[in-house]
Amino acid sequence: MSSLLIQSSTHDYEVAIGSGIRGRVEEILDKDYQKVLIITDSQVADLYLQQVIEGFSPKGQVGTAVVPAGEASKSMEQYQYLLDVCVEERLDRKSLIIALGGGMIGDLAGFAASTYLRGIDFVQMPTTILAHDSSVGGKVAINHPQGKNLIGSFYNPVHVIYDMETLSSLSPAEVRSGYGEVVKHGLLSDPKWLDELLQQDLTQLSKDQIAKDLAKGIRVKANLVEQDEREAGVRKYLNLGHTLAHSIEAELGYGDITHGEAVAIGIWFALKLSKKKFQTDLPVKDYVNWIIRNHFPVDKLNKLDCNSLINRMKRDKKTVHEVINYVLLTDTGFPCIEPLQDEELLQELNDFLKEVRRHD
Amino acid sequence: MSSLLIQSSTHDYEVAIGSGIRGRVEEILDKDYQKVLIITDSQVADLYLQQVIEGFSPKGQVGTAVVPAGEASKSMEQYQYLLDVCVEERLDRKSLIIALGGGMIGDLAGFAASTYLRGIDFVQMPTTILAHDSSVGGKVAINHPQGKNLIGSFYNPVHVIYDMETLSSLSPAEVRSGYGEVVKHGLLSDPKWLDELLQQDLTQLSKDQIAKDLAKGIRVKANLVEQDEREAGVRKYLNLGHTLAHSIEAELGYGDITHGEAVAIGIWFALKLSKKKFQTDLPVKDYVNWIIRNHFPVDKLNKLDCNSLINRMKRDKKTVHEVINYVLLTDTGFPCIEPLQDEELLQELNDFLKEVRRHD
Repeated sequence: MSSLLIQSSTHDYEVAIGSGIRGRVEEILDKDYQKVLIITDSQVADLYLQQVIEGFSPKGQVGTAVVPAGEASKSMEQYQYLLDVCVEERLDRKSLIIALGGGMIGDLAGFAASTYLRGIDFVQMPTTILAHDSSVGGKVAINHPQGKNLIGSFYNPVHVIYDMETLSSLSPAEVRSGYGEVVKHGLLSDPKWLDELLQQDLTQLSKDQIAKDLAKGIRVKANLVEQDEREAGVRKYLNLGHTLAHSIEAELGYGDITHGEAVAIGIWFALKLSKKKFQTDLPVKDYVNWIIRNHFPVDKLNKLDCNSLINRMKRDKKTVHEVINYVLLTDTGFPCIEPLQDEELLQELNDFLKEVRRHD
Repeated sequence: MSSLLIQSSTHDYEVAIGSGIRGRVEEILDKDYQKVLIITDSQVADLYLQQVIEGFSPKGQVGTAVVPAGEASKSMEQYQYLLDVCVEERLDRKSLIIALGGGMIGDLAGFAASTYLRGIDFVQMPTTILAHDSSVGGKVAINHPQGKNLIGSFYNPVHVIYDMETLSSLSPAEVRSGYGEVVKHGLLSDPKWLDELLQQDLTQLSKDQIAKDLAKGIRVKANLVEQDEREAGVRKYLNLGHTLAHSIEAELGYGDITHGEAVAIGIWFALKLSKKKFQTDLPVKDYVNWIIRNHFPVDKLNKLDCNSLINRMKRDKKTVHEVINYVLLTDTGFPCIEPLQDEELLQELNDFLKEVRRHD
C-alpha cells in the first residue's frame, strides 16, 4: 500500500492506494468511530459493499444507504434521502460517513457529510479511475436542473482509500472517462508523461500502470489544490476542458456521456483554441489520434446545437458577469485563463463541431 | 454608527450598529457587487425592503426573494426555492446575497449563500434583537422535521449591518425572545451586567439601552466563537439553555414559541441543575422573577411530556453516543459541560416541569 499526503486549511489527509484494501478501512483510519454510514450506489453495492462492511467490528454499528447508480442521483432528492437516513440512524458529530463509489457518490455523500450537523467526518473510497480526480481536493456537490455542481461545499475527507481491485469491474467507457482526467493532469504538468499517456491503448492497461498514473494524477491535482483550496486562482486550471464538458453533459442529459469522456472532448476544443491563440506546439495531432483510437464518443456531439451550448456555458460557475472564462495552455504544463467574447466563441465552437463531425 | 470587528479563520468582518443605516449598505460595504439578491420574509419586506433596495445604484441589479415569515420557512423547500432564484437571477461567484430579517432569514439565506456555487458572499442585516446572536459566528442552517438546525454549514458573512430603527417594530414576544439570548450572554460573562439585565422591564427599554446590550452580547459571543469556530470546545457554552429549548420548540411545533423565549426557559432549567450540582450562588431567584415579571410563556410547557422532550434531546447535535451533554454554570461567567444520564435527567426534568406549573 502506498500513500500520498494532501494538505488542506482544516487538516491534512492521506490517500492510501493499494490492492484489496477495501476490507481494511477500520485498520487504516487512525480514529475510532462508534457509528458508520456507508453510502454507495446500486451497482457498487452488489460488487463491494459486503466486503467493506466485513472490515468493521462490531458489524452492528455500520449502516448503509444505497442510491440508484448514475449521475441522475446527484440530485436534491437523493441528498434529502441521505439526510433522512443520517437522522434515522442517529449519526452524531463523532460518526463517520463513507462514500463508496465513483465521483457521483463521492460528491453526493460528501455534500451530505458537509452539511449534516454542519459537517461530520467522511472517507472517500473511489471505485473508478475518474474519481482519482474528484476524491481529492474537497469539492463536493449536487447538480441543479440548470447546471452541474451548482450546489455544494468545499469540504475535505479525513482519508481517501483507493482499492485498485475495484477498478477491474470498470466498463471501457468508464476507463476512457477516468483517463480523460488523467490526460488532463498530464497536460497540466509534464510533457514526458503526457507523451506516454497519448501512446496508450486504454483496453490494454495493466493494474500497475493504472496505479502509477493515478498517483501521478493525484499529485498534480494536490499541488494546485494545496495552493488554492477555494479556487480563487491556480485551482481554476483544473477546469481545463470542463466548461464545454459541463455544457455537453447538461445538453445531452446527465448520464448519456460519461464526465471524463466529455472532458476529453472539451480539452480537444481547448487545445485547438490554445494553438490558435498562442501558436504553441501542443501535441494536438497526437491528442486527436488518442481520442479517436480509443473510441471516445465524438458522434454524440452531432445532436448538439452551438447556441444552446454557449448558453449553458454562461451558467458555468467560472462565468463572471456573463463573460465566459476559458482555461487554455500556452504550452504543456503552462495553463492560463482567457475571457472569450460570445462572437469569437460561437465562431470557434462552430468550426470545432464541424471538425469533430469529420472524425465521426 | 459604532462597529465591532469579528475574527474568523477565513476572514475578519465588521458588525456595524447604527440608526437608519439600512439604506446605506452599498456605502458601508468595502467591495462592489454587480449583482445583489436580497432575501427577506413577507413581514420584513413590507416594512424595510424598499429602503434597502433604494440604497443601491443602479437599482436594476438588485433582485429580491421573499419567503413566508415564521420558523416554518427554515425548511428544505424554501432552501430549494432560494437556490432556484439564485440560478434564475444568474448570480455568479462575485455576487452578493443579503439576509434581511431575523434569525430565520439569516440562517436560511446564509445556508443558501454557503452552498450556492460552493459559497458566495453574504451580508447579515438583522432586524430583531434575537438575531444579534445568530448573525455573528457563521452558523447557518435549516431545520429537519426531526430537529432544529440539523442541516447547515459554518460560513461567515462578509459584514453584519444592524439598523437599530428596525427593532422598533418588534412585538413584546420578539423583545422577550431577543433578551433570552442577551441574558444568556450576561450569564456567560459578567455578574454586574447580568444584575442590570435581570432588573429590566422589557416593555420599557430605550433604544440606547438596547444598542448597548446588543454590543455587549455580540462581544461575549464573538470572544467564544473566535477561540473555537467549529464548536469543538468553548463555543459549546453558547448552547446554555438550548438543549431543552430546541426540544420545547420541536415538540410545540416550530413557531408556537419564539426561540429566545424557549431558551430563557431552558436556562431556568440549567440554572436549577447547576445550583443542585455545584451549590453555586447563581441568582436563580432573580432570574425566575425576571421570567415571570416579563411574561415569558411558561404556560406552554403544560402541554409537554417529559419523555418526549428527552427523546428530542437525544437527537440534539451536541448529543454524542446518545449521552446528553448539558451546559451548566459553576458561577456567573463560568460555564462547563456535564454529561447527564437518562434517569437523572428524567427526574430533574419532571421536577422542573412541576415547578414551572406552579408559576403558571
